[in-house]
Amino acid sequence: MKPHVRQTEPFRWEGIPVSGYKPSGTHFSGITRQLVFEGGSGLACELRYFEIEPGGYSSLERHRHAHAIMVIRGTGGVLVGDRVVQLATHDLVRVPPLTWHQFRANDGVPLGFLCMVDCQRDVPERPDDAALTRLRADPSIAAFIRT
Amino acid sequence: MKPHVRQTEPFRWEGIPVSGYKPSGTHFSGITRQLVFEGGSGLACELRYFEIEPGGYSSLERHRHAHAIMVIRGTGGVLVGDRVVQLATHDLVRVPPLTWHQFRANDGVPLGFLCMVDCQRDVPERPDDAALTRLRADPSIAAFIRT
Repeated sequence: MKPHVRQTEPFRWEGIPVSGYKPSGTHFSGITRQLVFEGGSGLACELRYFEIEPGGYSSLERHRHAHAIMVIRGTGGVLVGDRVVQLATHDLVRVPPLTWHQFRANDGVPLGFLCMVDCQRDVPERPDDAALTRLRADPSIAAFIRT
Repeated sequence: MKPHVRQTEPFRWEGIPVSGYKPSGTHFSGITRQLVFEGGSGLACELRYFEIEPGGYSSLERHRHAHAIMVIRGTGGVLVGDRVVQLATHDLVRVPPLTWHQFRANDGVPLGFLCMVDCQRDVPERPDDAALTRLRADPSIAAFIRT
């Protein structure tokens, strides 16, 4: 990577491709991924920029690694553990290890956020039927999650 | 840290103190530091937000750890290695290991940026007279740096 990488249009950067969120799947919708900083060469973490289009959502998942997130575009909502919260631009979200989480853009507004993660990390787990039943016991979570 | 931390006013966050850039020194000016994400608990890096007031500057230094930076407020300039470049909001800067660097806000505009670093990192080194002479051999660097 060059020392200086310009933003070429809003939330797009010179030489950084806009790629799919995950290689495949039907458990997410309308979300793109840009790797703004690779790890290695003195960095144990990487920084990604995800953008969810209005009405879209990330996958409902959990894993042993943590997420450190800053919203930098738009607004949306997130499930973290047992709470659904509304997010404004520049709000922070910390997803602790083994905590169910899912991000959603609101209708009419994209949700764009930076997400810092360890380079060395485990593969996400999706909820089985028993986990979904436990999550849906809370009506606000039942109304929020998309699978 | 709570899972959700709101931005309470522009570039200030609930419960996150605004602190001095470094414990002491006269080799920087007009710069504050907020630790937006601590490391640990599943994160090998931390994320800081630095804000330089108009006319201010960070220290001219280098170290073995790398910096991964995104400007999120205002504009400014940076020396990275042997180049001085102008920065716009959302531009990215990667400072490789052992590379001299210094950030400056432009006159009249603050420069605010996120900086991702490893939790385990070495202490920065400042240039000695010989290093300063080498840096100042380039007129654009000589005009830019503040010591």
